[in-house]
Amino acid sequence: MKAVGVVVEYNPFHHGHAYHIERAKMETGADIVIAAMSGNFLQRGEPALVSKWARTEMALKSGVDLVFELPYSFAVQKADTFAYGAVSLLVAAGCDTICFGSESGNIEDFYHTYQFLEKYKDLYNHEIKQFMGKGYSYPKALSLAFQALEPEENGIDLSLPNNILGFQYVKAAEKSEYPVKMVTIARKSANYHDQHFASASIASATSIRKALFSNKDDITAIHSYVPIDTYEGLQNYLHDFGAFHNWNMYWPYLKLNLLQLSPTELKKIYEVEEGIENRLLSLAIKCETFPEFMEKLKTKRYTWTRLQRTLTHILTHSTKNEMTETNEVSYLRLLGMTETGRMYLNQLKKVCPIPIISKRSSFTNQQIQTDTKAARIYAMGLPEPYRQKAIELEFMQQPIYIQDDRNEQKNKAI
Amino acid sequence: MKAVGVVVEYNPFHHGHAYHIERAKMETGADIVIAAMSGNFLQRGEPALVSKWARTEMALKSGVDLVFELPYSFAVQKADTFAYGAVSLLVAAGCDTICFGSESGNIEDFYHTYQFLEKYKDLYNHEIKQFMGKGYSYPKALSLAFQALEPEENGIDLSLPNNILGFQYVKAAEKSEYPVKMVTIARKSANYHDQHFASASIASATSIRKALFSNKDDITAIHSYVPIDTYEGLQNYLHDFGAFHNWNMYWPYLKLNLLQLSPTELKKIYEVEEGIENRLLSLAIKCETFPEFMEKLKTKRYTWTRLQRTLTHILTHSTKNEMTETNEVSYLRLLGMTETGRMYLNQLKKVCPIPIISKRSSFTNQQIQTDTKAARIYAMGLPEPYRQKAIELEFMQQPIYIQDDRNEQKNKAI
Repeated sequence: MKAVGVVVEYNPFHHGHAYHIERAKMETGADIVIAAMSGNFLQRGEPALVSKWARTEMALKSGVDLVFELPYSFAVQKADTFAYGAVSLLVAAGCDTICFGSESGNIEDFYHTYQFLEKYKDLYNHEIKQFMGKGYSYPKALSLAFQALEPEENGIDLSLPNNILGFQYVKAAEKSEYPVKMVTIARKSANYHDQHFASASIASATSIRKALFSNKDDITAIHSYVPIDTYEGLQNYLHDFGAFHNWNMYWPYLKLNLLQLSPTELKKIYEVEEGIENRLLSLAIKCETFPEFMEKLKTKRYTWTRLQRTLTHILTHSTKNEMTETNEVSYLRLLGMTETGRMYLNQLKKVCPIPIISKRSSFTNQQIQTDTKAARIYAMGLPEPYRQKAIELEFMQQPIYIQDDRNEQKNKAI
Repeated sequence: MKAVGVVVEYNPFHHGHAYHIERAKMETGADIVIAAMSGNFLQRGEPALVSKWARTEMALKSGVDLVFELPYSFAVQKADTFAYGAVSLLVAAGCDTICFGSESGNIEDFYHTYQFLEKYKDLYNHEIKQFMGKGYSYPKALSLAFQALEPEENGIDLSLPNNILGFQYVKAAEKSEYPVKMVTIARKSANYHDQHFASASIASATSIRKALFSNKDDITAIHSYVPIDTYEGLQNYLHDFGAFHNWNMYWPYLKLNLLQLSPTELKKIYEVEEGIENRLLSLAIKCETFPEFMEKLKTKRYTWTRLQRTLTHILTHSTKNEMTETNEVSYLRLLGMTETGRMYLNQLKKVCPIPIISKRSSFTNQQIQTDTKAARIYAMGLPEPYRQKAIELEFMQQPIYIQDDRNEQKNKAI
């Protein structure tokens, strides 16, 4: 069986994602789709709307065949580390193609850009330093440095969020010399950062989350923007766990930590650098809400997402020690599979270079302990009796299993 | 002016406390009463029902003239460290007598017991070790070792809680050779640990707290057991801060910490010793509520209060480093005064060997930073908008000031 890999967060799964999966199979001729999915905390430094288990179920019911968890130490990271982890995961899972959505939609242009930047690497790094020295954030400096090099016309626009991520996937695959072919498709309609619904059925995950939180516990507003399985999955989550997750529910915990820790202790947390510990500590005492805190914390030097990632690391108490950076995942944590996915998995087991973990208790290392810690702390956002149930999922939950007939019926209906 | 010192928690102030103050003045002929009062966390390892400011106001309206905060690093401690801190505070505040309530009621018996135990010190310490080796808790071992020495008849019963504390006051004063006279009065009616109301007007603080929490937000049940100023003070606190404090409101925070910290990090917390960190970590993952956690945590080796103190130190993140034990307080944090108290204070300022702190921002050292951290974390138990207001009290609140006319009117009425 031929597998195409996708790097996803599904927060939550929507029609755009369904389109991506469909096109990925079409473009690559793959038999199955494997997702490297972030766990409970995401690249933007936010808790996922619903748990990794609920998001896995939505994905499996909508066309993905296998879902593996992208470990926390790659998932809550800047784009390049994130990309290295995700690509290494999909390669270990046997994908020979990886398909990502981008604003550009032209894979050749990604390779041109990669080669161009490799050629002018020293100059590029010099420019990046210059811009950072002027107080720009790292991603902004990357984009400005790229512009300063006056790139050729067949390059991509590196100021667009999905082009940036895609570029990092291409770079990770090239640098690691993985035998994997990269494919990109143009994103349809909704922009990543769209806050409002722009069309009748395609909406960004951002606008869907916004609608969910502005109509507390009433999810009917998003009905036409997500597949029925996402809609039911969200309904079930509300029923089973009482709430959707957002930063507001973790704010008291974060604030507590910032009242507890000394500057020296805070500096042991990953990404707490350059004196930001003092700003964090003095602002925490003054702010009543998370939005107020973020508003006051924000500077030109740090992007919003970088700051949120730092706060996520404080919340999950992820230290510099445990987050030692590597370029490859050390295990495949199986979150779920379809029947077809299971057949593929049986073959993969014979050749996979790293352990495949179906049962959390069967394996341990520092990286997976960090995942477990993050999953439990994610659960702390819920009120009881949901909280304790959610904490126990990490060791008790079996991988989600979806029989294929459901997918087949759907395909027939189409 | 002649001052008598009392060591108190006033959680909350009740008729028994009023009686204590009245008798203290009568027995010693003192003009004013000075209280060394625990801040927001108490010797039993519990949050106080209401803040130190609210408790100070109740005390000043009911006969105390000056209230100083017993620093956290003495207040949340086993009896002997607690006593050293409290006695050193009252001596620094110029008290020439200290009056405590006890089951015994006979001060000579305290001195006899002290001299007896000094005489047989080596044997006593040997017996304590023996009993601890058998798995008894420290206080229980003290009591059993004392019995094993077959004390003379004119000693006190060292298995009773107020006798134990009183004995430690006497010991602290003797060891430190303070020029202070110790006085004791027999406690009236209610026992320290009484859970239920035993008479129509005298009740233990324990039974008052129990009544408050079993009739959520309805405080009428305790009306006849506390002075009107306590009653109004509690009513005001509910209005101004939304809730009375207990361990249940801090349980999510404690649980978060126990999910966050590694055994090595947890061992840096004061009183986390002898492998208890592993029990704490593994139980926290399993327990839904604080009572369930305590029930499972309890062993013969540790008293309930010792365990609660350890948990308080985790909650306030009080490390072994910062809790370095000393026998003397290093400042007098003024929480409140009456008009008479202020006159006394003006004299005291000229001779006091340590700084008198009326304004938190005017002074800093490690000990007072720990108090401030504890006060702010105590505030975290409240919901917003009360939480932020309570956090800011630590630096914003002026010492409570009560004019004397109120007391005079009361005295006339009596």
